[in-house]
Amino acid sequence: MKIALDAMGGDFGPPNLVGGAVMALREYSHITKLFLVGDSSKIESELRKHQCNDSRISVVHSTQVVDMSDSAWSAVRRKKDSSVSRAVDLVKRGQADAIVSAGHTGAAVAASMIKLRTLPGIDRPGIAAVLPTETNVFVLIDAGANIDARPEQLLQYAFMGTVYSRHVLGYKNPTVGLVSLGEEDVKGNEMTKEVFKMLKKSSLNFVGNIEGRHLFEDPVEVVVCDGFVGNVILKTCESISVAIFQWLKHELMRTPMRKIGAFLAKDAFLTIKDKTNYEEYGGSPLLGVNGICIIAHGASTPLAVKNALRVAAESIEQQVNPHIVEEIRRYNETTTSLEPALR
Amino acid sequence: MKIALDAMGGDFGPPNLVGGAVMALREYSHITKLFLVGDSSKIESELRKHQCNDSRISVVHSTQVVDMSDSAWSAVRRKKDSSVSRAVDLVKRGQADAIVSAGHTGAAVAASMIKLRTLPGIDRPGIAAVLPTETNVFVLIDAGANIDARPEQLLQYAFMGTVYSRHVLGYKNPTVGLVSLGEEDVKGNEMTKEVFKMLKKSSLNFVGNIEGRHLFEDPVEVVVCDGFVGNVILKTCESISVAIFQWLKHELMRTPMRKIGAFLAKDAFLTIKDKTNYEEYGGSPLLGVNGICIIAHGASTPLAVKNALRVAAESIEQQVNPHIVEEIRRYNETTTSLEPALR
Repeated sequence: MKIALDAMGGDFGPPNLVGGAVMALREYSHITKLFLVGDSSKIESELRKHQCNDSRISVVHSTQVVDMSDSAWSAVRRKKDSSVSRAVDLVKRGQADAIVSAGHTGAAVAASMIKLRTLPGIDRPGIAAVLPTETNVFVLIDAGANIDARPEQLLQYAFMGTVYSRHVLGYKNPTVGLVSLGEEDVKGNEMTKEVFKMLKKSSLNFVGNIEGRHLFEDPVEVVVCDGFVGNVILKTCESISVAIFQWLKHELMRTPMRKIGAFLAKDAFLTIKDKTNYEEYGGSPLLGVNGICIIAHGASTPLAVKNALRVAAESIEQQVNPHIVEEIRRYNETTTSLEPALR
Repeated sequence: MKIALDAMGGDFGPPNLVGGAVMALREYSHITKLFLVGDSSKIESELRKHQCNDSRISVVHSTQVVDMSDSAWSAVRRKKDSSVSRAVDLVKRGQADAIVSAGHTGAAVAASMIKLRTLPGIDRPGIAAVLPTETNVFVLIDAGANIDARPEQLLQYAFMGTVYSRHVLGYKNPTVGLVSLGEEDVKGNEMTKEVFKMLKKSSLNFVGNIEGRHLFEDPVEVVVCDGFVGNVILKTCESISVAIFQWLKHELMRTPMRKIGAFLAKDAFLTIKDKTNYEEYGGSPLLGVNGICIIAHGASTPLAVKNALRVAAESIEQQVNPHIVEEIRRYNETTTSLEPALR
């Protein structure tokens, strides 16, 4: 399988991206081709640092980078030679099977939409983030692709999340919850109230509105929300996990007895720290585009980049897109003319 | 000081509310009067269980309760004799200085708005939740009062949060951040982009858009967002904190060595667990109404109810409302006729 990596994006640029690429190639023999797209001199200099001359690497030079302060759509239109656009081009032309970007999320979404188009029946793609519970994982969609979403787009996310949960995570009949302010049907804002009605009418295994405790303590399998809310949930989880471990570490170092205790129980901390560490998850698929695009964390370490490439390889194997198309087609067929079709 | 407690609201009703009231009266001698509003037979039965015949208690009978499935505004209009409405009436008539409710948040907000009115210059009240950082606390506004907020209302929240942070939390020139999807000026949804411009023009100490890490790792002092997003942040924090400690507990119990370690380091866990425990915070002030209203957690334990009553007593002492009115008046005076006034 062939993957195109935007080697310029992310908070730390080529060092972390190329570092992660080198790690991935060492570990994953089924990656047969890895395009590193961006400033070729910078990329090659990083490769030399790692003493890497793996023949599966192909450096594709591009002269521009989308800055974090650029507006997504205009960046894609104006910076024709940006690393993210060129990486998506490789997928469009069939030279690569998937693209991975840790850069400007909006630009990766816009470039994918413009160049690859959305799947039939899908208006806007959504990021499907996989998050841990104590015993399993759930999918949160949309984690930040579509920040001014419309109700019917959230319904599309519910379908895509269900397909992903079934075909990739292995849940037979995944439960779907809508993020709201209370569990009762009447709770929510104008948008969620409308989405609630649509979900209730659909064939999905919709359990209703959900709140915080349905995320981790008593979780549903597919969590649906708009991209703004989803991104806030994701980043809040990340921030508070880091904070709790930091606070705990300082408290544990305050007395000799606590230090001994912490030493004896070290493995327990590491297990939970790994579980809550985004680096282990690597990247999240952008579902709904006609191709495979993996969005990695902006602050990706080499380990996170390696894992994002692993997720890309898995997505190439899993091929959920035909299942999404089929599910949406079936919904639109069974929807009476009185109800709105998905598109 | 005199406080009216809605003794029927919350997930657990009179047992927890009356239990918390009894605890508060034992601890806080400066509460000179505590109205317990609701079904008097149930309230008196709970008081008997606690063998409490404190002369500061006054039971006020009401025949109705707002259910969690009721719509907020219609519940206040239709259920004239609900415990929350009657409790707000006591404040309106000057018999109580503050109301505390753990019931339907929307109903407490609606009853306060209808009966007490908002402060001059304030369209909609906002819940100011105080959250912990490692060394301090910050205020998140709005944590769930106003779920379909307009941009100018978020500007009002920024002013109210700043006043609260200055006069109650003691920050001299509190930094204000706007919850968004990225730190760059261009990031956000349609609403936050508009609010961004307003905040930038204002006299507030606005630091720009903030993301997850500005909540706990590198925090600002006032976090501004709409009520939907704020409530999601609050509940996500609560849920993931509970989950992490639960996961950690199970991991710590898996081997005898870890168990010994956990025992030695027990105090460190308890310190952090307390820090992240909403029960210790008790309740959050609803800022912007012409009176004092404290919103407690729906799942309040007696300890949480006691602490909500403590927050009410503190709010009566602090009296932030005149400062809010003054701050908004000054803003509106200095705003040129070309810019929109706050009201």
